[in-house]
Amino acid sequence: MMSGKHTDADDDSPFPEDPSDTRTAIMKATFKALCKHGYADLTIKRISEEFPMSKSLLYHHYDGKDELLLEFLGYLLERSEEQDFPVTTEDDPEARLYSFIEHTTTMSEKAQKSSFRNALVEMRAQAAHDENYRTHFTRTRVHLVEHLTEILVEGIEVGVFREDITPDSVAEFLVTVAHGSKFDQATTDDPILEMTHAEVERYIESCLLRTP
Amino acid sequence: MMSGKHTDADDDSPFPEDPSDTRTAIMKATFKALCKHGYADLTIKRISEEFPMSKSLLYHHYDGKDELLLEFLGYLLERSEEQDFPVTTEDDPEARLYSFIEHTTTMSEKAQKSSFRNALVEMRAQAAHDENYRTHFTRTRVHLVEHLTEILVEGIEVGVFREDITPDSVAEFLVTVAHGSKFDQATTDDPILEMTHAEVERYIESCLLRTP
Repeated sequence: MMSGKHTDADDDSPFPEDPSDTRTAIMKATFKALCKHGYADLTIKRISEEFPMSKSLLYHHYDGKDELLLEFLGYLLERSEEQDFPVTTEDDPEARLYSFIEHTTTMSEKAQKSSFRNALVEMRAQAAHDENYRTHFTRTRVHLVEHLTEILVEGIEVGVFREDITPDSVAEFLVTVAHGSKFDQATTDDPILEMTHAEVERYIESCLLRTP
Repeated sequence: MMSGKHTDADDDSPFPEDPSDTRTAIMKATFKALCKHGYADLTIKRISEEFPMSKSLLYHHYDGKDELLLEFLGYLLERSEEQDFPVTTEDDPEARLYSFIEHTTTMSEKAQKSSFRNALVEMRAQAAHDENYRTHFTRTRVHLVEHLTEILVEGIEVGVFREDITPDSVAEFLVTVAHGSKFDQATTDDPILEMTHAEVERYIESCLLRTP
């Protein structure tokens, strides 16, 4: 997520208060409309209602909501390589791995109710029948796995992770866990977070970290 | 899934060739229409096109596709407690755990293209904004976790699983992995299955099984 001053603190908005360019303003309007209406009830008209500039800019550029949403998802990806992955300045591979796990498998009370998180899950489900969404989410998954693999390889080099692990298998597995957590959080009321998170930590300690 | 003779082998149909009662016939028609059209393009009319009995039976009983689909999901749940969970006759807890993992994290070439699996993911995403879907999927998750917890408790008793594991944490974790696998399989083209599956097996060996 981007840093800087946020106005929509309730929905963890990644947007600046006053976007200076048209594209960012359109992306911000899309974010606000998604939080308010969700994916299913979103329309270009509803996005335009959140857009402070000339409405014709929006109607002129986008044929439908899916065209706009794919650009929106690409915009998020450009900024963080993957909206699920927090960019940290931590250098320590172990701390970066825990930061990823913390971010993806636990959630604050606030974030659990996040309409934006739910809208992302709904958009992702479109990929089950829409090739363009599928291409996008394949790309974000590949990026995320590569990012985690790098952390694991570096951790093996500096001696915090075990030498006998297979970094890309571990990375694929952890991304699967992260996506399962998001999916279950968005679609059930089962308070799964704490127990799943505790077991992920046990897995990291038993299967990934070098025994001292 | 139900055993018995199947006609829709391409889509792993859980239905008998000639359903003898109206409800089963409606459920079978729903399944066929879902495989053909997916969730987004499904209508009561399209379900009725797959229904060999009087169409008025369908229009009379259901107000809309979501009412019918929720009954359909309940029907699947009644039969297997969870559509993702294969009912096995294996008694050995270790074999039953591996059977669950095999079923949920790997997929045949055929099943990977399953339009029904994709439709289930799309239906599940509805739970992000629809309370009735949410109630259903919470219930299926709870059932699945309970089922796995029983297997783990039994495995501890007979000495195949470690005594220091927390059965419900492990069960929550494995269900999260299973749902993440389904979600990623339905929404990306990343060939994740083999690597994720290999790491799940390493987790079971290192974290769950008793060292001989």
